[in-house]
Amino acid sequence: MTKELLKIIEYKNMGQLSQELQKMNPVDIAKSMELLDDKSLLVVFRLLTKDTSVEVFSYLDKKSQQKIIELITDNELKDIIENLFLDDTVDIIEELPANIVGKVILNTSLEKRQLINQFLKYKEDSAGAIMTIEFVDFKEQMTIKEAINHTRKIGINKESLDNCFIINKERVLKGVISLKDLILSNEEMLVSQVMDTNIVSVKTSEDQEKVAALFKTYDLLSMPVVDNENRLVGIITVDDIVDIIEQENTEDFQKMAGIEPNEEPYLKTPILKLAKNRIIWLLVLMISATFTGAIIQGFEEVLQSVVILASFIPMLMDTGGNSGSQSSTLIIRGLALGEITTKDFFKVIFKEFRVSIVVATVLAVVNFLRLYIFTSADIMISFTVCISLFFTVVLAKVVGGILPIISKKLNLDPAIMASPLITTIVDAFALIVYFGFAKIFLGI
Amino acid sequence: MTKELLKIIEYKNMGQLSQELQKMNPVDIAKSMELLDDKSLLVVFRLLTKDTSVEVFSYLDKKSQQKIIELITDNELKDIIENLFLDDTVDIIEELPANIVGKVILNTSLEKRQLINQFLKYKEDSAGAIMTIEFVDFKEQMTIKEAINHTRKIGINKESLDNCFIINKERVLKGVISLKDLILSNEEMLVSQVMDTNIVSVKTSEDQEKVAALFKTYDLLSMPVVDNENRLVGIITVDDIVDIIEQENTEDFQKMAGIEPNEEPYLKTPILKLAKNRIIWLLVLMISATFTGAIIQGFEEVLQSVVILASFIPMLMDTGGNSGSQSSTLIIRGLALGEITTKDFFKVIFKEFRVSIVVATVLAVVNFLRLYIFTSADIMISFTVCISLFFTVVLAKVVGGILPIISKKLNLDPAIMASPLITTIVDAFALIVYFGFAKIFLGI
Repeated sequence: MTKELLKIIEYKNMGQLSQELQKMNPVDIAKSMELLDDKSLLVVFRLLTKDTSVEVFSYLDKKSQQKIIELITDNELKDIIENLFLDDTVDIIEELPANIVGKVILNTSLEKRQLINQFLKYKEDSAGAIMTIEFVDFKEQMTIKEAINHTRKIGINKESLDNCFIINKERVLKGVISLKDLILSNEEMLVSQVMDTNIVSVKTSEDQEKVAALFKTYDLLSMPVVDNENRLVGIITVDDIVDIIEQENTEDFQKMAGIEPNEEPYLKTPILKLAKNRIIWLLVLMISATFTGAIIQGFEEVLQSVVILASFIPMLMDTGGNSGSQSSTLIIRGLALGEITTKDFFKVIFKEFRVSIVVATVLAVVNFLRLYIFTSADIMISFTVCISLFFTVVLAKVVGGILPIISKKLNLDPAIMASPLITTIVDAFALIVYFGFAKIFLGI
Repeated sequence: MTKELLKIIEYKNMGQLSQELQKMNPVDIAKSMELLDDKSLLVVFRLLTKDTSVEVFSYLDKKSQQKIIELITDNELKDIIENLFLDDTVDIIEELPANIVGKVILNTSLEKRQLINQFLKYKEDSAGAIMTIEFVDFKEQMTIKEAINHTRKIGINKESLDNCFIINKERVLKGVISLKDLILSNEEMLVSQVMDTNIVSVKTSEDQEKVAALFKTYDLLSMPVVDNENRLVGIITVDDIVDIIEQENTEDFQKMAGIEPNEEPYLKTPILKLAKNRIIWLLVLMISATFTGAIIQGFEEVLQSVVILASFIPMLMDTGGNSGSQSSTLIIRGLALGEITTKDFFKVIFKEFRVSIVVATVLAVVNFLRLYIFTSADIMISFTVCISLFFTVVLAKVVGGILPIISKKLNLDPAIMASPLITTIVDAFALIVYFGFAKIFLGI
């Protein structure tokens, strides 16, 4: 698509370009524009109709938004800002450099500036920060017909019309009515007779993860946001929730791999930032592995007399580590999805204990047979390896199961705290058990 | 909520119970009902109004759905099946035991049975399998007014009304119109004048992951599904997409931890199934660690002369493993989100190479200083350890970066293939480099 566009731009055939643009989806126009040079970017942007240009602008990446703000006139900018949804405007102000923000603020009406200021006060990742104020509200005493006419009059610029909200004189939220029910109901009825009073709403301070969970539980398309007096102040729409779910998942993947969470796409993140995000946990884990090294040094005389013991250390540690991370992943995910709560502490311990007995027995037996059949390993050494393997796997799974729950209980992030700690605990335990058993069974 | 319900059920105060139920959200009713015994379950279910009972039924877990189907009369079941959305009916038939399905089929009308059969032919996880057929369609020559009236007449039972679809005589999809535009447009205009012809649609065979990606890219609430002749056959709604996104994420978390993907919640999965899902990869990884053991045995004479070398093996292997899994996690996630494609192969190699040089240098230097300052380790041994650490981290990151892309290119699942292979490759490389350098620098 972009290649064709580029060709048309080169030939300076503005009529054709404008025609092509009209056939395209605003998301696709935005994606193509991100690849253009400054001059072509401005040419294409100015060819868009007014409505489309605002929509395309909201889909552009930060770099292209910044370029356009720099290149267009104050009047053009004014038009865009006034027609942008408030949440998009706030995003721009939060994420663009100060000089750009300056130009934006200068071209924003006083009324909108005040709204923006109010938005900037909401905590990041709270319902207030992700909501939008473009919604349709009705008074309780309106009839369906009046409500439809009211919607026709003011609805053109509203971001979400799937649900409309009914408020009283004090703007307290009383009910919700879907556009579908509005159309399907008898025109003479009052909205208060048709509205659903069973409302799932959140306070502005609610965390976005909780909000996303409510959307999932109740299959919502939009959700009203209220202040402490239960007055309607905004709505959250499901398309933003989809983004938030993916963002929270990405963060969890990163944290569980020992990386500082970072929202930027990989290919657009600078080398040094990527390195910085990774180095901290690697250093922590490297230093903590010193501990494991010290244990091995403590058993130097055991190793000295039976050097072959060293060759089983990687297998023991890897299998222990894998066993533990299987359990911690399942529990961390269960906690994130709300399928497991901290109240399930003992259920999880007991479950992991039973699972680990099954898994550890299979692993130990298979490993013993493998050593017996395929290698010439001393039978007492094989026995030492396998019994250590058994205890390591059981401990790894139980620790892997409970550490995330303990983290959650202590209000620490299970995804961050659990994995690195498990590695250290399991490694140390595996070695102590291993050399301990070696001393006993091999009589060193 | 459930506690109160239980108390009311105990006192057999049906009037109060019915009143309480009317105030509750169907999702909450379903959640509470899952905790009841068979008798109370049936009592509560029968107290629900007809519309609510169907909705509550669709939110119940499989076990409670099964119980209710067993307990209610054929006529009651007929009513439910006829009013359930087709996609929910198909889910029940796919997931419940054969005897229950038998009772369901017996109470399903011929027309609905034929539709169900058609649905069952769609491949699991395809657009056809997740779509629903409850949508509203208009003919091109309808006016807005006619369209609204048509919607009023047939819209009551439609799952999603946010978007309506315009089709020609051959049922070929021509355009889409949102309920919002329907309400906001001039009543005398034709739907074909107002409709958006820029339609994002999918074929029935499209994979659900692709469908979810389109929803994310275009911020959609619903999407039409067409057959090979571009005829409209169903729609997919965003609430199902939210579930699919979470399901795909859960699967990726499980695969990356070496667990067979499993949709059941942790606490509801039997012990043996949990064990079975975990044992395969643990066995594979344990056996592949044999390889690492063999390398150590091959260097037995080196270890014999400098036993202390063994104490650095865990640190080397852990740091290598962590470095690799950081890279593979970022790339696997980038591929899943579509931010990285297989075409970025060389970009990723080059980026990981540069990041790894930075990270490896910091780790090696810190480790050398730590050994020099805090321990009495021989300086040549420290040097051997740190130079091995450097090369291990660089290799781990490059391999961690490219293995997921190679897997994807080979049409293998990056999440499954990458992690276990990386561990084995990095462990083996680390040991060979380590003992190789030891031989050179320590003159063994």
